[in-house]
This record gives sequence, C-alpha cells and structure tokens, in this order.
Amino acid sequence: MLDALALPPLGHLDPAFGEVMEEVAELLRATFRTANRTAFPVSATGSGGMQTMVDNLVRPGDRVLCGVHGLFGERMADALARRGADVVRIEAEWGRAIPTERLVEAAREPFAVLFVVHGETSTGVAQPLDALAEACAQHGALLFVDCVTSLAGHPLDLDSAGVDAAFSGSQKCLNCPPGLAPFTANDRALERMQGSPSWYFDLPLILHYWQADGARAYHHTAPTNMVVALREALAIVQEEGLDARWARHAKAHEALRSALRQLGFERIAPEGEELYPLLAVRLPDGVDDVTVRGALLAEHGIEVAGGQGPFAGQAWRIGVMGEGARAPVQERLVRAIARELNTDATVALDALHDGWS
Amino acid sequence: MLDALALPPLGHLDPAFGEVMEEVAELLRATFRTANRTAFPVSATGSGGMQTMVDNLVRPGDRVLCGVHGLFGERMADALARRGADVVRIEAEWGRAIPTERLVEAAREPFAVLFVVHGETSTGVAQPLDALAEACAQHGALLFVDCVTSLAGHPLDLDSAGVDAAFSGSQKCLNCPPGLAPFTANDRALERMQGSPSWYFDLPLILHYWQADGARAYHHTAPTNMVVALREALAIVQEEGLDARWARHAKAHEALRSALRQLGFERIAPEGEELYPLLAVRLPDGVDDVTVRGALLAEHGIEVAGGQGPFAGQAWRIGVMGEGARAPVQERLVRAIARELNTDATVALDALHDGWS
Repeated sequence: MLDALALPPLGHLDPAFGEVMEEVAELLRATFRTANRTAFPVSATGSGGMQTMVDNLVRPGDRVLCGVHGLFGERMADALARRGADVVRIEAEWGRAIPTERLVEAAREPFAVLFVVHGETSTGVAQPLDALAEACAQHGALLFVDCVTSLAGHPLDLDSAGVDAAFSGSQKCLNCPPGLAPFTANDRALERMQGSPSWYFDLPLILHYWQADGARAYHHTAPTNMVVALREALAIVQEEGLDARWARHAKAHEALRSALRQLGFERIAPEGEELYPLLAVRLPDGVDDVTVRGALLAEHGIEVAGGQGPFAGQAWRIGVMGEGARAPVQERLVRAIARELNTDATVALDALHDGWS
Repeated sequence: MLDALALPPLGHLDPAFGEVMEEVAELLRATFRTANRTAFPVSATGSGGMQTMVDNLVRPGDRVLCGVHGLFGERMADALARRGADVVRIEAEWGRAIPTERLVEAAREPFAVLFVVHGETSTGVAQPLDALAEACAQHGALLFVDCVTSLAGHPLDLDSAGVDAAFSGSQKCLNCPPGLAPFTANDRALERMQGSPSWYFDLPLILHYWQADGARAYHHTAPTNMVVALREALAIVQEEGLDARWARHAKAHEALRSALRQLGFERIAPEGEELYPLLAVRLPDGVDDVTVRGALLAEHGIEVAGGQGPFAGQAWRIGVMGEGARAPVQERLVRAIARELNTDATVALDALHDGWS
C-alpha cells in the first residue's frame, strides 16, 4: 500500500484517475455498508470529514443533539457552535458510552440532527447506535456519526443502523497513511445542503468533481497519490472481508487486554462498551507515563498514545488497528512493556497466546 | 521524493516527526523568502491554504479588494463572500495582469485587505506585486497573495514585496504530490485572528501543534507521509537554489514558447506578463482541443490541461514546473504535438534547442 502511494502521480483529471475514483467510491460503499451514491474521500484528514459534514449538512440555528463523552464529541460540539447551530450536549463521563435511553430521552423534543461518535478514540469506547435512527425518525431528524476509528475495525453497518451521514479517516483501521477522510451521506442528508460557509469543503462543488454525470468539473486538485493508496487499502479490507476483519480486531483486542492485565493495566471501557481498534488502559501505580512511553518509542520503536482529557498522564491508548491487530505486533509490544517495567513477560505472553488460539 | 512519500509512517506526535516539522518550517521560510515565524503546510490541497487565509485572517464585514483576472481570483472572491467580507472586485480581462495603477487607484478608499493571485494558473499570467504593499500601508491594510503556481518557479520574495500572508500548493513547482498547502503569515496578519468559522482550518489551534513552545498540542493527525515528502521536495529546491531555479523556469518557458510558436501556438500572456511555470497558448485554427489532448495522453502519456473560462476549448495550459521544466521533457512534448498534428517537428525542435543553449 505504501508502494501504491509512491506510484508516479496521476493527473487529477486524467481518465485513468477517474477510474480510480469510481473504484474508491464503490469500495467505500462496501466498507461503510451503504447504498448511498455519495461516498468519497474528503481531501483532508479525518476532522476535515467532520468539517464537511458540519459546513454542508447543518444550518445555522439547527437544534443539534451532540453526544459528548470524550475529545471527539467535544470537537464536534465546538465545530457545531462555530456553524451557529443550537448545540444540545448529551453527555456521559469520559470512558463510558452514553446510555441509549439518555439519547432517546433527549430526542423527545424536536431537533434537526443527532450526532454521536461511534468510536471515541480518546477513551476507547464504542457508542451503540441502536434505537437512535428511530428516535430521529419521529422528528424527521438526521443521524450523523463519526466513525474515524471504528470503520473497518469495529462492527458497523451504516444502512442497517439508519445513519444518514458519516465520516472516517484513512489512517486508522483502513491502514493507509493519514490525509483523507472517507465520507458518505444519503439523499435525505444531501437535501439539507445549502450555502457552505467554506469554499474548500463545499459539497455541491466537490460532488461535481467526484460524482459527475458527464465531465468531472474541476474543484481542487485531488491528492491523487493518496487516493490511489486508499484504493489499495480498501481493496485489502474487502479481500479480508469486513466480518472477518471485525472478528480479527475483536480477538486482537481481547488478547491484548488479557495480556496487559497481567502486567497491571486495566481497560477503561467496561465490558460491552469497548472499541475493538483502540484499547485504552489505566496505568498501574508507580508507572511513569512519559518515561515509559518515551522508552517504548526510543528503545523499541513502538508508539503508544497518551491519555487525553481527564486521562492525561493516567492512561495509554493502544491502537489495535489494521495490520497492528496481529499477534506478532502485539507480542513485540507486550515484551517491550514488560522490559521497560523490569518485569517478566511470560504470564502476559501466555495470556496473549491464549487469546489468539 | 516519491520514495520519501512511501517511508513507513511516522506518528504525528513522534519527536522524530517534530524534527521533520521544524525542518519543513525552516525550508518553507527560505522558499517563501520570509522571516515569518509562521510557515507550515496546511493539511489540505492548495485551496485549503486559501480557506485557512480567509477563515482566519478576514473578518465578516471587512472591505477586501480582490484582484480577479482568472479562475483563481474568482475562487477567492467566492470564498471571501462566504466569509461575509465586503468584496470589491478589481478586474482585468482573462489573459492579462491587472494594471498596477488600477489596484493602486482602488486602494485610495480605506480597506482591510488587498488580495491578488501572483500566478494565475487559468491563464498563465504573473501579477506584478510592486507598489501594492505601499498602497496597503496608507490604510494599515494587509497584502495577501496566492502563489500556488508561482512558488519556486517564478521570482517571488515575500518580505521584499511586503506580503503579509500567502499560500501555495505542494504539487506545482515544488514538484511534490498534491495534498499540502504551504502557508505563511506575519505577525501583523496574525493579529487579525479571531474566531475561525471552521474548526479544521482554525489557525490558533493548528499553530499550537505546528508552532508549540513546549509540547505540541494535538489538533488533527498531520498527513505525516506527505510532510516527509514535502521536506524532501523543499530540500531539492534549496539545493538547486531559488535564483537558479527561477532562471531555469524562465529559460524553459521561453524555449518551449518559441518551439510551440513554430507549430502555430501563440502564448496568451503578452511579453512581460508571462508566468514562467505555466505556458498558456491559443490553439491554431483547425486543431481540435479534445481530440489532440486526448491523443497526447493516450498515445504519449503526456497530460496537457485544457483552457478554463473564456479559453475553454481554445487554449492549452502547459506546465513548465519543477522537473517538468527540463529540455528532455519539453522535447518529448514538442515531438508528440508535432506527431499528433501530422507535421514535421524539426523547426520547432531547433527553436527549443536554441532556447536551451
């Protein structure tokens, strides 16, 4: 896939690139599990997908119920406020999913959009989507979802869940470098388009390029190398199969969780709320966050993300994504952590191998 | 440079990537010829640099003089209007520079910002920047410039020209794949920052990551592979030297111009208004735009861009950028065009070689 990134650049209006674009759209539909015609990568990182959603599918004054149970819900609330939406925060403590009944309760009064983060990367929590589409339907409201970290790593079927628009990122479970934000929206959502405040993220203009009936109309120069790499990454996902890929991520998550538990790390997310692609664990007493993470990077070339928000300095966020969700990668990690904690890795490695067997 | 793109991804908070970021900032300063502290690539294509400028450095109600003499001036006028600016269009016909006296005349009344496109990619015209900073100074106004196509291919010295903020694109004369928008602004311009309507392009948040005094604060995941590739591309520019690079582009432009004149193509830009990196030429009578451009791509693997706006179907826009501004590349192009026009290439090739000798 990195090889694909380095192929000689294709012109962004070259018909050969047009074929790549069609393939990417089709592969994205399969990965999002949607029949939406509109499925393309925004030319920006994951948060550019969020911005595209907010700029085009939310109108000033819209009452938007915004789930906030971590950094990415906060981010969306911020973006919505900048758009002039009437933001109603539906919160849960960091490290927990928002109870479905709380969201359904908030949806009793009329509103325009309900937004939730499916995979909260800041806490490693998956937000259930059940019953949300029904809660929206009674007001003709739309259901929007951030699936940056969950897409292709955690079970998600956009059309079955009744999601109207969603965005993701290329660098998580799709296993592609960062730089593109897969995006999809159905016709109901697209009917809301009117006057994006941003020229760069203007969806009608972008769709004249990505979704042309005749000639593709130039909007901006698409990052062609990245799009070619994304096609390759998406093809690999389809080759494995989404269900098999989800199962692999589930197994990898559980295996690593039991291994790290042996080293004193406990998962933040309670049973049933875990996000397979991201294992967030509390540090055992006496383990210094910066020192040990620094050593993992410097001595072992392994990057572990630190805690965010209330978990800063107290938790690690470990990716279990794409090719990282494999036993040999995890074994290397477990050995390295044990080494830096000056402890024996045997029991933890046994737990890891049990998890994979 | 394509090899650099395909190096294993660095984490966006990895200290090793932090060093890359510092090098990129320093190399951008040298390439823009500016002492501005703020110099970084926006995580989007060139127009994302424009959007960053508009969202952060223009305020609703600002009177903005916007030079419009091609597609990219039109684009800026559109973006400014979406921002709620009071846009005053200073126009010239497509294919000509805007007379300096017209801009200076318009600057008599108070205004907040003057924006011009230094290299108009739609017409191959370079806009002189002389006297514009002085015209701005009398009102304490700012001078903003689009140098997407001109940076590192056409003489440009931001600080000498008194430019307060500018944006470019990675894929033109920097010879890097598309996906990043080099951006710079001085302190005077940054003082105007207040409440970006866009979360993604929010400059204060981005600068907490790119320009941290202490720890880099996470905003969005930087497209690390692209940034590594950009560093490589910028280092190549510095190795050649900006003055030598400009001179090479000037020579390449003139050589190709004389060669194509022998085949019946006349440059649109009059003498003295040409943009070295982009040669826009009128098609000779009897040459069918789509047929011949299609054959150049299909038979010779050479992509020539079509005319835009009033020049659609009537002109070609030929890149003379980066590694494309070399004699062997141009020779291949001249041979291919002659072949598709069923004419002899000898005289044109002689003109080309004379231009390079």
